[in-house]
Formats: sequence, structure tokens, C-alpha cells
Amino acid sequence: MDNFEFYNPTRIIFGKGTIAKLSKRVPRKAKIMLLYGGGSIKDNGVYDQVMDALKKHEVIEFGGIEPNPDYATLMKAIKKVRKKKIDFLLAVGGGSVIDGTKFISLASPNEEIEPWDILARKVAKDLKKAIPLGTVLTLPATASEFNHNAVISRRETEEKLSFASDSVYPKFSILDPETTYSLPQNQLRNGLVDAFVHVMEQYMTYPVGAVVQDRQAEALLMAIIEMAPAVLEMDPPDYDARANYMWVCSNALNHLIGAGVPQDWATHGIGHELTAFYGLAHAESLAVVLPWLLWYKREQKREKLLQYGYRVMDQKMQKYSERIDRTIEATSAFFQSVGMPTTLTSYGVDPDEAAVKVQARWEARGWSEGEHKDITGADAAAILRLSR
Amino acid sequence: MDNFEFYNPTRIIFGKGTIAKLSKRVPRKAKIMLLYGGGSIKDNGVYDQVMDALKKHEVIEFGGIEPNPDYATLMKAIKKVRKKKIDFLLAVGGGSVIDGTKFISLASPNEEIEPWDILARKVAKDLKKAIPLGTVLTLPATASEFNHNAVISRRETEEKLSFASDSVYPKFSILDPETTYSLPQNQLRNGLVDAFVHVMEQYMTYPVGAVVQDRQAEALLMAIIEMAPAVLEMDPPDYDARANYMWVCSNALNHLIGAGVPQDWATHGIGHELTAFYGLAHAESLAVVLPWLLWYKREQKREKLLQYGYRVMDQKMQKYSERIDRTIEATSAFFQSVGMPTTLTSYGVDPDEAAVKVQARWEARGWSEGEHKDITGADAAAILRLSR
Repeated sequence: MDNFEFYNPTRIIFGKGTIAKLSKRVPRKAKIMLLYGGGSIKDNGVYDQVMDALKKHEVIEFGGIEPNPDYATLMKAIKKVRKKKIDFLLAVGGGSVIDGTKFISLASPNEEIEPWDILARKVAKDLKKAIPLGTVLTLPATASEFNHNAVISRRETEEKLSFASDSVYPKFSILDPETTYSLPQNQLRNGLVDAFVHVMEQYMTYPVGAVVQDRQAEALLMAIIEMAPAVLEMDPPDYDARANYMWVCSNALNHLIGAGVPQDWATHGIGHELTAFYGLAHAESLAVVLPWLLWYKREQKREKLLQYGYRVMDQKMQKYSERIDRTIEATSAFFQSVGMPTTLTSYGVDPDEAAVKVQARWEARGWSEGEHKDITGADAAAILRLSR
Repeated sequence: MDNFEFYNPTRIIFGKGTIAKLSKRVPRKAKIMLLYGGGSIKDNGVYDQVMDALKKHEVIEFGGIEPNPDYATLMKAIKKVRKKKIDFLLAVGGGSVIDGTKFISLASPNEEIEPWDILARKVAKDLKKAIPLGTVLTLPATASEFNHNAVISRRETEEKLSFASDSVYPKFSILDPETTYSLPQNQLRNGLVDAFVHVMEQYMTYPVGAVVQDRQAEALLMAIIEMAPAVLEMDPPDYDARANYMWVCSNALNHLIGAGVPQDWATHGIGHELTAFYGLAHAESLAVVLPWLLWYKREQKREKLLQYGYRVMDQKMQKYSERIDRTIEATSAFFQSVGMPTTLTSYGVDPDEAAVKVQARWEARGWSEGEHKDITGADAAAILRLSR
């Protein structure tokens, strides 16, 4: 097992009716900015619950944070935060709103820093000043409510970059499973796939004798597979299934299962490019990459593929090459079972074109990914060419 | 799933050589009290590593905190903390030293409170003042290094009571698996059993549709069973096995798997009495209770016993009463496989006498335990009578 530090001070407030607890968690004297996305929270009652809980607080709104939050939008918010002297940020939404709010939290008070450097030059880790933030989660998927990461897009330059800083852990995150009742089925599906891939990226590498982390990761994968059919029930939604869904997404990327083990974030790395170039939803981009990455790296990931197949996918055949084949197929089949395509061609994207574009960008930036940092632009291209 | 709050801000610093990181984690200007137990840290090199890391700090020592830390000992420490105006506590040891330090942390600055009331009247939850503490773990078992609980004994009155307070989360806990190399095998065995029972007490109740927590608990149980033989290897010790051992003990009681599910701490409740009356080590007391409690409550715990048997103990027979029998036997067999007796008679304790003593105390206090609070003194006695 590798050495590690684990630190996650976010307070999770979980369950039915918990939005009312906001009033006690947001400092009474704070000047609050309420950040949200396209306004769905005004249709589904969440906005009213939040404003009711904060009726004795001073609240300034900033709506319109888009999926894959855009740098230009966030720069407007930063300007407003500075001008209005905001001292608490409340993100109400999904990963995009929360990620955007983390960026605002860190960029706003550090005026001496060029905000883009937080992403492009990875200066986030050393910044201690941040405006405290809390979240009300309405779209489970990314676990941003329970970690210190954020991913920001810059449409102007077709870039999508991430940062991490202990300063942006939410002080609290309120997770009320009933807020998911108004989600369309494709967003539930996206969340299940996103969480599944998050776990895989912290697990599907090579063994380092980490018995605990392996079992914990397998637990989350089995939980996602077990809960999926009930999570997708719409009429009526199943409370416990939605609660499991919210909680598994949060646990998939709260730094616990990834502590002390090698990780392979190549699927996210390649997927981000597909979102930037072709507008695929984040989870859609992951599902058209992961199975083909496993196929491409099957020799390097052999031992973990065999373990995952045996324990999670119930593929117990002793002929190992066959077990690996069936295991990767079962992974694709799981994505398809929740209605998620697993090929670029399903979206009308030409794999050869995507391969060329992604390779050019990775090579221009000198990027390589994977647990051995050996997935280069050429490998990313080879993986994408399989996705047909 | 039940509503819950989850909060655990302790920073875990894990791995080989991490004691040297103390110097950066303990505030430079703090007046530090170093707390430890019977002095084994002076034999195994841990004391020297700690003092070396803190050579630029002002350190006052308090040794002699005994297993099942005694109220009288801790009161002496509290007096010294107040007199010397200590402002950081560093616990170096196992659960007893850390639990004792948590009590000192909370009692010392709250001078208006009678210290015993923290235990007897459960006032801990409301106390905000506490002297900050950090830990260097040398004896994995209780997870005290990663939670907000403590158990304190008062030999004078043969009592053993617990408290919980968010104010006593360690600021950091350093977990270096090599510190376990000097542990005798029976302490390793105790830790494995303690962690196993901690998980069971948060898991073995009745289903509430908590797919994630169930899978996470089963993951830890399977991990303990998988790692046990390697953990007990003494010559030479296996680094990865000891790392897994340290980490599984911490994860067994860091509040995560117990979030949102019913719990049954009757095994601990009964076990504490056996320690108080007969001096059984904590884990020994748990192993002579749990299998018999499962036997006694097999109807009430039927659904979870079947699930646990199928998923963890590989008992897949479709005749349910048989599966339950074999599952409870497999639990006892696992304890025995690490060298842990599962009957009171193994320790020369008369089950009938123990039953009478425990029942009298539980009834005098009006105690009842279990996920339905229906395990009374009479039930505790019935469970103990089976332990032969």
C-alpha cells in the first residue's frame, strides 16, 4: 500500500426534509450568494425551500451556471462577489454549480492571482484564502459536494481543466434524496455511470496489496449495479433507491477508496475532450471510453480485471483470457442496461476524427495519463478508434 | 434509509516514516503534553521518533495511562494540564491512551463541569471548548484515532462508560504500520476481533434499504477475514498486511458504515461489564458475547443474518434455518481461527455467575440495548448463559 493523507471535513446532512436545516448551518450575519444553474430549482420547489430556510439571512442570487461551468460565466460571478463583499457561497444544484462555486470561492479573495492560473498553472493547492461555501445537492453524480475537486470549462478555447484545494471543501452539504424526484431519467442514468467510472478509475490499475480499498471499491460497484433498476423507477420514484443513489455518488469520489492506491484517470482525461469537441454529456463521454480503455490495457490491468470480474461481475471461469473478455463485456452491458450507449458511433461521432483531434491536443500539451503515465495521445487515439 | 449527519474532520497521515511529519502538524508555539501508556513506546523506538520530530517544541510528558483508562489516572492528568497551561495534547498509543486523552481534552478547559458528568450525564455533546489533540497510533483496534468517541473506566466503582463529542476529533492521526511490528500476536488478534465486531454492530440489525452501507460493511468484514492470516505473521511482519490491519480498524468505526442505519451495541454493552467484573480484554469480552447474541436474536436479525451468511460467510444454502446456523458457527470459527476463545468458560468464568452480576447491574441502571432497545438485563443474562 502506498503512503497517503486522507482529509475530508465536509459535514453531510442527509435525508428527507433536511433543507430546512440550512438556517442553522449558514452563519446568521453572513452576506450570502445563492448560486444555481438553469433555474430548474425554481420549478421543483428546491428554491422555495432554500429561501424559506434563509428568510432571516441576506441573500444575493447568481443563476445561470451552465453544465460544464464556463469560465466566462464564473468570472462574472467573481466580479459580483468582490463588489458585493459576499462572505458565504451557497451552491444549489449538481456538480457543475458546485464546481463553479468552488472556483469562485478560491478566485474571489485571491485578487493577486490571475484566476485562469488556478486551472492552467495548478496554483490552487497553495491558496489558503477562500470564501466558505455550502451546498444543497440536487443532481447526484460528481461527488463535488463531498470533495475538494472542481472541473471548469473555457468555451472560448475549447478547454476543460481541473483543480483541487483543501480550501474549497464545502463546510456542509445537504443531500435530500427527494430533490432527485424531478430529474429526468437520463440524468439519473448519467449519475450512475459517472459514479461507476469514478470508482473504476481509483480501482482498475494494478494490485498494491490494498485489501481494504479494493473491497471498499468493489462494494460501491456492486451497490451501483444492485440499485440501478430501482433508481431509474420514475412513477413513483423510490425513496430508498434515490437515497442510495445520492449516497453512492458521494462515496465514489470522497477520496476514501483512492487513498493509498494507484489511480488511472485516463477515461476522464479522454472524456473531457469529447465533451469539449462534441458536446457529449460528461457521463456519456465516460461510457464510450472506459470499456475500450479496458480492452486496450487488458494486459497491464490483467490482475485487477480478473479480481473485478470474479468479485463484482460474477465471471468466475478459470480460463483467464475468457474471464477478462466476459468481464469487459459485462461492464459495457451494465452501461447499456441503464440506457447508456458505449460507442462514439452511437452519437454520430466518427471515431477516426475524434482520435485525430484528441491526439493532436494531447500531444500539443504533452499530456499522458494512466497509472503508469503511459497513455499518450497516440494511445488515446487508439482507444477512441475502438469505440465503434 | 434513516436520515443522518456524517462529519469526520480528522486528517489521517498514513504510512511508513510518517511520524517525522509531526513537526509540521503540531503548532510550533504550543505547550504540548505527550500522553502514553505503560512505556512500550520507549522500547519500540516510537518515543524516540516522536521526540525527534518534536525537538523544537516544548513537551511535557504524562505516561502510565492504563488499558481501559482509569478515571483516577485521567484526573491527575487534568490537574497537570490545567496547572501547566497545556494547549496541545499528543496521544501516542492505542485506543486507551487516545480515549483517555479525549477525556482530558474535554474535561480540562470546562472547569465548571464535574468531569464525571461528561460520562454519567452525557453532557459532552454540548461542550465546545476542548484542548486540541493529535494522535500517533501504535495499537490498531478501536478506531479512536478516527472518531469522536471515548470509553473510560472507573475502577473505584467498577464502571465503564462512554461519551461522544465533535470537539474531540483528533486534528490529525499518524498511522505508521511499522509501529505494529513490536506488538505481541494476542494484541493483533484482539484488534482484528474488535474491528470485526465494530462492523457487525453497525450492520447486523434489520434491513432499511441501505444498499451502500450494507455493501461497505460487508467489504470491511471480508477484508478482515482475508487479511487475518497475514496480519498474524510475526517473523517477519508483512508491511502490507499491517497496513491493511491499521486501515481496516480505523474504517470500522469512523462513523461511515453506521450512517443512516440502525445499530446494535449490545455486544459492547455486555462486554464492558465482563471487562469491569472479570478483567477480560475488550476484544476477548466481545468474542464471548457476539456469537451467542446472534444465536439468541436469530429471529429478529433473520434477514441480515441470511444476507451476511450469503455474501460474507459464503453460506449459500437455500434452507434458511440451516444457513443461519452455519453462518453463526462460521463467525465463531473465524474468531477461533485467529486464536480467540468464544466462551466465558474458556476464561474460567462461570456463565451463570456472570449472568447474575450483569443482570443486576443493568437492572439497577435501567439499561436496555439492541437496535430495538429490547435487550434487557434478563436478555443479557440469557445470552451470557449460552456462552459455555
